[in-house]
Amino acid sequence: MKKIKRIGVLTGGGDCPGLNAVIRGVVDTAILDYGIEVYGIRDGYSGLINKKISKLELTDVSGILPRGGTILGTSNRDNPFMYHTNEKDKDGNLKYIDVSKEVLKTVDYNDLDVIITIGGDGTQAIANRLYEECGIPVVGVPKTIDNDIDGTDVTFGFDTALSIATSAIDKLHSTAESHHRIMVIEVMGRYAGWIALHSGIAGGSDVILIPELPFTMDKIAEKINSRTKQGKRFSLITVAEGAKMKGGNVVAQRKVADPNDPIRLGGISTIIGNKIEDLTGIETRFTILGHVQRGGSPSPFDRILATRFGYHAVVAAVEGKFGHLVGVRGEYIKTTPIAEAIAVPRRVKPDSELVKTAMAVGTSFGI
Amino acid sequence: MKKIKRIGVLTGGGDCPGLNAVIRGVVDTAILDYGIEVYGIRDGYSGLINKKISKLELTDVSGILPRGGTILGTSNRDNPFMYHTNEKDKDGNLKYIDVSKEVLKTVDYNDLDVIITIGGDGTQAIANRLYEECGIPVVGVPKTIDNDIDGTDVTFGFDTALSIATSAIDKLHSTAESHHRIMVIEVMGRYAGWIALHSGIAGGSDVILIPELPFTMDKIAEKINSRTKQGKRFSLITVAEGAKMKGGNVVAQRKVADPNDPIRLGGISTIIGNKIEDLTGIETRFTILGHVQRGGSPSPFDRILATRFGYHAVVAAVEGKFGHLVGVRGEYIKTTPIAEAIAVPRRVKPDSELVKTAMAVGTSFGI
Amino acid sequence: MKKIKRIGVLTGGGDCPGLNAVIRGVVDTAILDYGIEVYGIRDGYSGLINKKISKLELTDVSGILPRGGTILGTSNRDNPFMYHTNEKDKDGNLKYIDVSKEVLKTVDYNDLDVIITIGGDGTQAIANRLYEECGIPVVGVPKTIDNDIDGTDVTFGFDTALSIATSAIDKLHSTAESHHRIMVIEVMGRYAGWIALHSGIAGGSDVILIPELPFTMDKIAEKINSRTKQGKRFSLITVAEGAKMKGGNVVAQRKVADPNDPIRLGGISTIIGNKIEDLTGIETRFTILGHVQRGGSPSPFDRILATRFGYHAVVAAVEGKFGHLVGVRGEYIKTTPIAEAIAVPRRVKPDSELVKTAMAVGTSFGI
Amino acid sequence: MKKIKRIGVLTGGGDCPGLNAVIRGVVDTAILDYGIEVYGIRDGYSGLINKKISKLELTDVSGILPRGGTILGTSNRDNPFMYHTNEKDKDGNLKYIDVSKEVLKTVDYNDLDVIITIGGDGTQAIANRLYEECGIPVVGVPKTIDNDIDGTDVTFGFDTALSIATSAIDKLHSTAESHHRIMVIEVMGRYAGWIALHSGIAGGSDVILIPELPFTMDKIAEKINSRTKQGKRFSLITVAEGAKMKGGNVVAQRKVADPNDPIRLGGISTIIGNKIEDLTGIETRFTILGHVQRGGSPSPFDRILATRFGYHAVVAAVEGKFGHLVGVRGEYIKTTPIAEAIAVPRRVKPDSELVKTAMAVGTSFGI
Repeated sequence: MKKIKRIGVLTGGGDCPGLNAVIRGVVDTAILDYGIEVYGIRDGYSGLINKKISKLELTDVSGILPRGGTILGTSNRDNPFMYHTNEKDKDGNLKYIDVSKEVLKTVDYNDLDVIITIGGDGTQAIANRLYEECGIPVVGVPKTIDNDIDGTDVTFGFDTALSIATSAIDKLHSTAESHHRIMVIEVMGRYAGWIALHSGIAGGSDVILIPELPFTMDKIAEKINSRTKQGKRFSLITVAEGAKMKGGNVVAQRKVADPNDPIRLGGISTIIGNKIEDLTGIETRFTILGHVQRGGSPSPFDRILATRFGYHAVVAAVEGKFGHLVGVRGEYIKTTPIAEAIAVPRRVKPDSELVKTAMAVGTSFGI
Repeated sequence: MKKIKRIGVLTGGGDCPGLNAVIRGVVDTAILDYGIEVYGIRDGYSGLINKKISKLELTDVSGILPRGGTILGTSNRDNPFMYHTNEKDKDGNLKYIDVSKEVLKTVDYNDLDVIITIGGDGTQAIANRLYEECGIPVVGVPKTIDNDIDGTDVTFGFDTALSIATSAIDKLHSTAESHHRIMVIEVMGRYAGWIALHSGIAGGSDVILIPELPFTMDKIAEKINSRTKQGKRFSLITVAEGAKMKGGNVVAQRKVADPNDPIRLGGISTIIGNKIEDLTGIETRFTILGHVQRGGSPSPFDRILATRFGYHAVVAAVEGKFGHLVGVRGEYIKTTPIAEAIAVPRRVKPDSELVKTAMAVGTSFGI
Repeated sequence: MKKIKRIGVLTGGGDCPGLNAVIRGVVDTAILDYGIEVYGIRDGYSGLINKKISKLELTDVSGILPRGGTILGTSNRDNPFMYHTNEKDKDGNLKYIDVSKEVLKTVDYNDLDVIITIGGDGTQAIANRLYEECGIPVVGVPKTIDNDIDGTDVTFGFDTALSIATSAIDKLHSTAESHHRIMVIEVMGRYAGWIALHSGIAGGSDVILIPELPFTMDKIAEKINSRTKQGKRFSLITVAEGAKMKGGNVVAQRKVADPNDPIRLGGISTIIGNKIEDLTGIETRFTILGHVQRGGSPSPFDRILATRFGYHAVVAAVEGKFGHLVGVRGEYIKTTPIAEAIAVPRRVKPDSELVKTAMAVGTSFGI
Repeated sequence: MKKIKRIGVLTGGGDCPGLNAVIRGVVDTAILDYGIEVYGIRDGYSGLINKKISKLELTDVSGILPRGGTILGTSNRDNPFMYHTNEKDKDGNLKYIDVSKEVLKTVDYNDLDVIITIGGDGTQAIANRLYEECGIPVVGVPKTIDNDIDGTDVTFGFDTALSIATSAIDKLHSTAESHHRIMVIEVMGRYAGWIALHSGIAGGSDVILIPELPFTMDKIAEKINSRTKQGKRFSLITVAEGAKMKGGNVVAQRKVADPNDPIRLGGISTIIGNKIEDLTGIETRFTILGHVQRGGSPSPFDRILATRFGYHAVVAAVEGKFGHLVGVRGEYIKTTPIAEAIAVPRRVKPDSELVKTAMAVGTSFGI
């Protein structure tokens, strides 16, 4: 097995609290523990394509542990296998070209023995192709605010998003109670309802709506009316942005190009909020948290998990576990082949223990 | 001057962090400092009308200082001078009647020597009529999350709302920076832009839009384009819910009954967000904080101010300053005749020092 | 198997954020999911001994999910097998008696089919004796802020304590940097260093001192001097209250009765702080967080874990898993015989992955 | 009046959240509003003495608004009128020399038309001497976490410290209640009790001890015993680090050189805690917050105040108000001659409105 002397590291895809903690974990471990040099690749795969690569020293990562964002920058559009040029074809569409061979040359030219790719399923899919098709050694570190990568029990960033969403629900709770209102809060989760499910349980929501469990407005109204009968004059609905109505996918109906598209104008929370006000006659207000959930300093849990991922990514690189993704299973860090880890997204199972727990304490899923 | 033996206290209008701290201040001061009894009137003026009045002991207010909401409940619909019956007139409209005489009897029957009315301009206007027209001794305590009552430099609840809004802007800032996006955040303030102005300055927003300074989309785009030229690839827009477009009041155009009303579907932030994306070509995301700003535990500043208001409301009652509103002027607590204090709402002056400060550090108001 | 109709529930031992969330989980699940009645036993075993037992309804647990403390009260002194009387023996010592038979009678008299005991190793040891020696059906729920119970990967309350400690370290970090000082922060952990280890990693501490790894002052000074040589003019030391000096247990040396006992006067942080100032010549300041770590609202993670524990305690009761403790293993809830779960406390292993991670990123353990 | 073309800015003394916000306010206002150049002087007066001066651009202050610490560095030992050399006199003491003439030359050499000095009374006293004795134009900006400068109603940093202290008291409150204990929390304030007074009121402390009101242990015990009689089995004591016992200044008795000095070993909170446990027989625990209060991101209030100070310091400089200190009076920014502003420290007046408010709601000051 070739001895690792130089590691490259990049961050791809959307923002996620903990990215800097992973980078620091990689750099500190490599330099202090193994005497390996680390090179930062800027703006995700764009840096590999456009040769934006520079050495990272201990001082570069000093103090970045608690900071949101990523010192390396990110990009979620630059794919070496389908790189956009600025030229257009005869139909006026942008032309895309395969620059993966150039990327391999850049890796060789910089003597990078392995690339640590920190990113979501998109980033990892590309990493796996670079490994399998071009022979570039890669080690993946999973990143997704939505917690929907299968190769790990949990990802960094999720606990932070959960804390932010729960804190908002707590505040709505106290004010809903004194105003006798329905409060609808829309949280992240386009395809998986983890944030809504967890924050809904943590915040004591009366209704939780997630993409995995298509709801009906009638069932929501039923829950709220039963609360009214018990003398509870307020209710809280936590809804994932990708929640779907039964027999008609609200999100699927969306016409992105339409400037009057209700989702573009507001979000699913506004649709649900307006309908539930009509159905129950109770005043309804809504909150759309949006990117607030992706920002700020990572929670202690996320900083620790991210640091462990950084450390173990270097260990995996040294041990030659290329094409693998670092992940956590119970108390332990394990690696899984990337292809396997991202084959199927990790979604909420309708009969899972957490859904049962929520139902047991009286939460409705609108089903 | 009649010696005060029994004080009544009520809270009216919308929720506001610090209400419980005022109530505790009133009860503790009255009982411990003056040996006066205190009676809690439930659900605002509704409690006076429907005789929901009960004695408050020290134990009733123990531990409520840091809690959001109000232990007395509130209502923003029950006006003794125009009380809704459940009967309808021939046109099918609800009939309203004047029950102020009954209210006076209830006050006399309960031997209440003064009513401390904690509430916004609506609550205080009624308090003043009860005082002037019915001779009921009242002392007002100003309450408004929007900070728009003229009789005081600042009201409790505002600092808490400001903290919540600023914390959200901080989080958007870090993620905007790494995503190269425009983030629009909509905060409270239907007629006055205090929350947007303060949180916009505190959060370092690039654009602040308030009702007092009608904006144009072109000026906003101009600001963002000038940032792009400086290499800054992200921008933050803080907008008050009541911000208006020049030459056409967005809010005024709103048709409440229309289920497709864009404001009902989203909020002004969505309109601005969609337009600015079209004008600049930069991806735009929005956050609507909503009632999150009214909830949660009051900030230390608000707890102290509320406690001072509670203490001084009792002092004012003992000193016979009926028909007056407690307020803060600089470091001191002063009282003002209610009529004078609520004559004109306190709005942001376009040439005020704070607006100048914001402009001096480079903030655009879209004008 | 006997059908469960009535469940008793008690909380014992020190305070821990999440106790109310467990109680709510038990009550909601029992009533809503199984139609079982729940009886609250007040002040831990004291309530069983002194017959302070009352029915809990859904309304009793409404709104308690996010609250610190326990609505049932707690006690960490009343042991049915060794109950203190107020009588003294001839040597003037308090006499203790075995009242476990009376407790059994009380359980039978109240028709309690099972007692859910929420508490630490002390509480669970008594629960197990009640089960094994008196035949009282019990189901245990582990509780320890220090995270040192072996029957579960993690306990509720720990994440909250970790967040509070990390937040304090973050604040010290920024001020240490500008002041060029050493900051020592003392956190909880008398026998196990979990809080110090986790918060030390999350806060980026330079030195972490835990009971499991006896330290020397020289090694700490060495680490700080090496930082000085690198131009870093500040350092952060996180120390567990039970950290020990090599070859001389600081805590063991403590004479509790001595009013001049340095630990009584301050804490181990003050001793370390004063010595390190002498050794390095760098100004040193200390913070003793104390019970701040046990207070406040539980974190979302803790609320969810506590809710799951509450739900599964009822499930275990219904399934007749008496003498068992609920716990979490990876993503799943499992039960373990109490005797086994508390046989050996869960302490930090010197060669564990987390210690290695901390060392890899440059943290010193003073060894 | 000479036109201002170049402004120098420095930060002196201890850390304080908001320093960066002032610097940003100065730089943005000077460059954007007036076209004035700004030069950063590093490490307080040390930078003037050792010529560490460099131009500040808009990009240098981008993003620093919410950050603790100071990008300019600080020093609280370098006084141009009494600068320490490394030489010693015949008695072995360090020799001090007057380098103020060199400082004047440095100011002239760099064409600095005015120096904005951000700092506490020590920093401002030196600034005033530089102005009066050397003719260097200065404008002061007050900075003190303790809020004890007379030239302004309030200083930035204070609200942040207050928030941190109150948050800790809140957490102690919930745990004190369930443990039936006395909790003592020591906060900053060596000569002025503002932090203890404000956080004590905001946190609902039962006892507040401040330097301005010497206490007796008997009066504290009396208060706690009266609570016990009311059935309240816990109490909270907030104590300023400089609080004094009547008829014997605890702090004055302190022998700094003595390694067994109780204050050095702990703090006044440990002394009070141990004594009150002996007097009342109730278990007592203590928290020493220490420099946690100086750290972290400034509160919105502090960011706004700091930004206003920065803006107005430039305005004052342009208007030629040299030798003046910027401050806030009610809603307005005013300037005062430095000499007058720092003549007497701003301390809590024993008969002030806030002390009366605290007493009215039942707080004891141990007097």
